[in-house]
Amino acid sequence: MRGSHPIVTILTDFGTADYFVGAMKGVILAKNPKTNLVDLTHEIPPQDVATAAFTLLALYRYFPRDTVHLAVVDPGVGSIRRPIVVRAVDQYFVGPDNGLFSPIIDADSEAVITHVTNPDYFLPEWSSTFHGRDIFAPVAAALTLRVEPYRFGSTIDDPVRLKSEKMQTTEDGSRIGSIIHVDHFGNCVTNFPWSELRAILANRSFCCRVRNVKISRLFTYYGAAADRREPFLIVGSAGFLEISLNCASASKELGIGLGDAVLLVLHSSLK
Amino acid sequence: MRGSHPIVTILTDFGTADYFVGAMKGVILAKNPKTNLVDLTHEIPPQDVATAAFTLLALYRYFPRDTVHLAVVDPGVGSIRRPIVVRAVDQYFVGPDNGLFSPIIDADSEAVITHVTNPDYFLPEWSSTFHGRDIFAPVAAALTLRVEPYRFGSTIDDPVRLKSEKMQTTEDGSRIGSIIHVDHFGNCVTNFPWSELRAILANRSFCCRVRNVKISRLFTYYGAAADRREPFLIVGSAGFLEISLNCASASKELGIGLGDAVLLVLHSSLK
Amino acid sequence: MRGSHPIVTILTDFGTADYFVGAMKGVILAKNPKTNLVDLTHEIPPQDVATAAFTLLALYRYFPRDTVHLAVVDPGVGSIRRPIVVRAVDQYFVGPDNGLFSPIIDADSEAVITHVTNPDYFLPEWSSTFHGRDIFAPVAAALTLRVEPYRFGSTIDDPVRLKSEKMQTTEDGSRIGSIIHVDHFGNCVTNFPWSELRAILANRSFCCRVRNVKISRLFTYYGAAADRREPFLIVGSAGFLEISLNCASASKELGIGLGDAVLLVLHSSLK
Repeated sequence: MRGSHPIVTILTDFGTADYFVGAMKGVILAKNPKTNLVDLTHEIPPQDVATAAFTLLALYRYFPRDTVHLAVVDPGVGSIRRPIVVRAVDQYFVGPDNGLFSPIIDADSEAVITHVTNPDYFLPEWSSTFHGRDIFAPVAAALTLRVEPYRFGSTIDDPVRLKSEKMQTTEDGSRIGSIIHVDHFGNCVTNFPWSELRAILANRSFCCRVRNVKISRLFTYYGAAADRREPFLIVGSAGFLEISLNCASASKELGIGLGDAVLLVLHSSLK
Repeated sequence: MRGSHPIVTILTDFGTADYFVGAMKGVILAKNPKTNLVDLTHEIPPQDVATAAFTLLALYRYFPRDTVHLAVVDPGVGSIRRPIVVRAVDQYFVGPDNGLFSPIIDADSEAVITHVTNPDYFLPEWSSTFHGRDIFAPVAAALTLRVEPYRFGSTIDDPVRLKSEKMQTTEDGSRIGSIIHVDHFGNCVTNFPWSELRAILANRSFCCRVRNVKISRLFTYYGAAADRREPFLIVGSAGFLEISLNCASASKELGIGLGDAVLLVLHSSLK
Repeated sequence: MRGSHPIVTILTDFGTADYFVGAMKGVILAKNPKTNLVDLTHEIPPQDVATAAFTLLALYRYFPRDTVHLAVVDPGVGSIRRPIVVRAVDQYFVGPDNGLFSPIIDADSEAVITHVTNPDYFLPEWSSTFHGRDIFAPVAAALTLRVEPYRFGSTIDDPVRLKSEKMQTTEDGSRIGSIIHVDHFGNCVTNFPWSELRAILANRSFCCRVRNVKISRLFTYYGAAADRREPFLIVGSAGFLEISLNCASASKELGIGLGDAVLLVLHSSLK
């Protein structure tokens, strides 16, 4: 697969107005012109490693085996932070060791992480400001040419981890969490995993609170909300509960957003 | 063609900041890694089916036979609106039945529309909020693998139609229409088809009015307007007359925009 | 190479909301469905030929031999400005003769410039407003099919040149230049080439002034700046000195931007 139709996805916080993304694409195609380049997004908020990690987590499972994901959100470029290659979930991830791949590593107990140190795989003259072009892109291209990760350097077992933002359960059975992402439509993604709440919410009423907003309805599709001003919970496509409005931005209309605390009180357990 | 160099275009209102578009790309490549993915635009204004339909209409004719166009502007996702495949103008169109393909269907009297109901072609676990990833993308990939549309479900003959916004002709021969699109440069695209007006405007002077703006000149290229403050009509590249300024945004400078009524009075018929 | 894995990059000021870029992609794929299309950027500021030229200059060297670069920033579309193909630096460049390829032509004394006049290579009905789709895209596709440039028209030796914005050296050895680009992160790219200043700055202190901002430090990576409010010079990835802040926008925080004059005083020469 890698040989015949290699895929390299690219995710950055570079925006698309500059030469940055184009230069990376050129480096990859110069090394392997057969590569199918896939833009994931270049609009990660500048230096926002957590959003980049969430986006990769929501995406990777849909790509075929051996896809190479080149992810560059890299505030520490040129400093001592390590360049790494992660082999996990049957795919490859190339980028800085700053937590970007933390959820991917958590998702695969057999993940192998390689510290990239071998300059044979860098561009001949590498800069201190643009490792995306000078180190990560040529390493990604090498992976599409079946170079094995051990060629790049030694394995490590202490990758940088993102501070976990997991849902907590209180003594009375309520859940406490937060809004971890606001999407293009204004849907507010919480860190409440549907897989853990599905059975519980099947036969209980609830009250969900964010700031001064109260939500007591769970819908399965947006159009189910007849009242377009009433917020509701919905099972989002990344596997988490989201706070939404029908055909409007929940974030803007309700004045809620990234980082806001979310409380989910389950009514039957309150009796 | 479909087998050797399959093309899937993607048009959405998802923006490019989220994981949405990337997830769709992954689904397609997982099913057919040979696919040449082509981003058309992801900046259709949220839920604006009419703009999406205009964009597809302006585009499709330039693509090769059997191109698969995956178009997802889908405010009714998860509700009773039907997922469809349209075979028309020698190409395929995959998306929701909400008027998105209305101009395409109008353009081909032999269009065949299939209601997609066969879950064999969906992702194994499909959501109610993201049919773009879970239904439309895998169906698009199946089309690149020569799956025939009848496999997806039954044909229908009552697709949802967009309310027509066609140019009208008054008793005195004037034309009444509207601005149906404002492009990136501020050019205001009207629904006055050049094919219908070319002969008439060849030998008549005219007065075109939008709000309090009067236009009496028709130019064939932007630079022909020596006075950069004078608005003019120009034959736009989508086949309609546009209201433009040379090197400036007609929409901003003139204070005109989407939905504004446009009146075209032909002078010789007023004598 | 051109035959087996042809690459066409696309750079425009069209934005990505309209049908413009998609139509160009369709034209290319209809003529050569094997083409690997690479979006460089579509966010060149409208009609900003100088920024487009800078972007191409920063990019081209990373692409493989025979890559075709389709660049359309074309305020003079439809007027007497010439469509051209440039063969230089082992690659091809297709677009308007308005200075866009000026730095590329400067970079290769053997550059060959062809005035494209042969309508056999245009779309059958070409417009006066969208040569990107009707002339440049089909010519780019023809290049991927090994059509030689002489087929398109005659060579010319008087291409339009951009007004040079080169660094000047004063009598006392100071350098005078300007900010030629502000990137997505707010880094201000000057026209001070590192290749010319590297040796000089190795053993001298300096004072760099832009508006009322004074800079006296040169760092090799962003994280070296412990004080996040202190601006510094850094060797940018396009080969020029840049004015930067660590994890913040130098342009916004310092109130400096495109076109601002930059003075570099070398201290030891002031003694």
